[in-house]
Amino acid sequence: MRALVYHGPSHTSWDTVPDPVIEEATDAVVRVDATTVCGTDLHIRRGDFAEVKPGTVLGHEAVGEVVETGGQVHHLRPGDQVIVSSVSACGDCRECRDGRYGQCRGGGGWILGNLIDGTQAEFVRVPFADHSTTRCTSDLPLDDAVLLAELLPTAYEVGVRNGHVGPGDTVVVVGAGPVGLASVVVARLYSPRRIIVVDLAGARLEAAARLGADAGESPGEMIADLSEGPGADVVIEASGDPDGFVLCTRAVRAGGHIATIGTHGRPVTLHLESLWRKNLTISTGQVDTSSTPWLLELMRFGRLPVSPLVTHTLDLGRMEDAYEVFARGTGTGALKVVLHRE
Amino acid sequence: MRALVYHGPSHTSWDTVPDPVIEEATDAVVRVDATTVCGTDLHIRRGDFAEVKPGTVLGHEAVGEVVETGGQVHHLRPGDQVIVSSVSACGDCRECRDGRYGQCRGGGGWILGNLIDGTQAEFVRVPFADHSTTRCTSDLPLDDAVLLAELLPTAYEVGVRNGHVGPGDTVVVVGAGPVGLASVVVARLYSPRRIIVVDLAGARLEAAARLGADAGESPGEMIADLSEGPGADVVIEASGDPDGFVLCTRAVRAGGHIATIGTHGRPVTLHLESLWRKNLTISTGQVDTSSTPWLLELMRFGRLPVSPLVTHTLDLGRMEDAYEVFARGTGTGALKVVLHRE
Repeated sequence: MRALVYHGPSHTSWDTVPDPVIEEATDAVVRVDATTVCGTDLHIRRGDFAEVKPGTVLGHEAVGEVVETGGQVHHLRPGDQVIVSSVSACGDCRECRDGRYGQCRGGGGWILGNLIDGTQAEFVRVPFADHSTTRCTSDLPLDDAVLLAELLPTAYEVGVRNGHVGPGDTVVVVGAGPVGLASVVVARLYSPRRIIVVDLAGARLEAAARLGADAGESPGEMIADLSEGPGADVVIEASGDPDGFVLCTRAVRAGGHIATIGTHGRPVTLHLESLWRKNLTISTGQVDTSSTPWLLELMRFGRLPVSPLVTHTLDLGRMEDAYEVFARGTGTGALKVVLHRE
Repeated sequence: MRALVYHGPSHTSWDTVPDPVIEEATDAVVRVDATTVCGTDLHIRRGDFAEVKPGTVLGHEAVGEVVETGGQVHHLRPGDQVIVSSVSACGDCRECRDGRYGQCRGGGGWILGNLIDGTQAEFVRVPFADHSTTRCTSDLPLDDAVLLAELLPTAYEVGVRNGHVGPGDTVVVVGAGPVGLASVVVARLYSPRRIIVVDLAGARLEAAARLGADAGESPGEMIADLSEGPGADVVIEASGDPDGFVLCTRAVRAGGHIATIGTHGRPVTLHLESLWRKNLTISTGQVDTSSTPWLLELMRFGRLPVSPLVTHTLDLGRMEDAYEVFARGTGTGALKVVLHRE
């Protein structure tokens, strides 16, 4: 089959590799109908993740059709349409039994496109397939469904839920990439008073406004107001940038929450000399994807208007182009790039 | 009357000052029967709190007898024995109505010995007296009661409760000063599996063991084990030191809590490049003292064996000596120094 292979820092290519096969009885092999590129993939390509070995097929989000299952897969059959979650879950360890799949101690966690071959390929081997996929139906648009593999669960679990967004809240989202914008869509479910999105890119702020963020004064002015006044109830850090983190700590009110979603490559400064008195709660997090079934229901009921998040669709064979389009997104307004089986 | 007055960085003295009087109808004047010195007072004396103006009487913890009340004080009468909380609460603003007295927007919060004259004196004016005191009875030992003014509520609200200590947890306390040790006592109410206390001072570790912390391997070895293994469920930062904070982030398990209690004077480094995947919750906090009535009940029922926290008692007139004894505590094992009315 064809797949995007990582060969070392700044070197990936669309190669012919062996088709994946069932290795464990709990595996399934899935034909990839749609996959996408994540900000984390850009970090991996740059060489920021030492754990990713040359030769690894990248990608950790997909929708596709089950083509083969191991003897211990009980809930899937060939022909089933599934969302392949970025997080694999053994389903049996203490962490999994408590829904913390991202911290699975049984061999799962985020391993796809990281420790094992991933989804940016024609086929993917999905370990612990019963617990690492969610069945869906073919009437669900692929471009929406693929966002349930990681993006929307991350925005919900790590951003909105960790941040305790509630009715009447002032919510600030720092960083208007796909996960920041997805957080806007999910936060709106909780009837906040207003959502202020901060980004350096005008095109991304326009996307934020289309998705329901509040416009009006410039975000910079709004943040300045918050710094002077009581501040925001919830701040979601979706920039992955050390300065973005400090901005969050300036914008939040005493007693408020900062939920960090961004993938950070460097330490940040926490100004405890002024923050110790502010009764803050700061959360970090990798998604569990435990919320995917619930988000799928919300999507079916029309409560997750996320289609604007997909700005580009390409044939799977154009995977390398997809990386370039996505990497230039800050300037061009490109958000999620979804690749379809040809 | 006599009182400890701040005259600027590194300069305090035991002076004769005017007796406090009722200034607002919600004030009470309390005769100080016992007061104490807090780590924060040492910071103030060094000049770390620019908001503290020369001429201010220091101190924010006391037990005493009400001698006069303003016309709008409804729940106190002269002769009542009261715990004077470090935090004053208007009782009426949005924050107070929700129990967040430390963030009071109505003129309260931590103001005693900070923005207004405090408790290290023969008498103290207590603003918003109905909401800023807790009545107690004279059979309660003064040395225990005065710990309810701030120390025990801080250990509970900011350490144990923010840290979500629960049955079976491994709890690490970094810093074995009075608030760290009080956290050990309060944490034990929740039946943790073990409590590991880390401090550089041997005398303080001995005090920790007497209060119920686990001994055995050295704390350093235990922390190393935690860093290799799954880690601690809850880490309480009670050192106020940037290195102490980093140690907390090494000791905590994925999905665990770090509750910072320490008064920090400098920024700390938060290693998000490794911590973003660990699903941590980090809290900062200033006490509300909303838990004082509950802790008082626990104390009456014998469930708060805190007497070992008071290592020295002195007459009130020896306030300057008390600062010296307390400041040398890291080396000498001195913990709380309580001053009694002569």
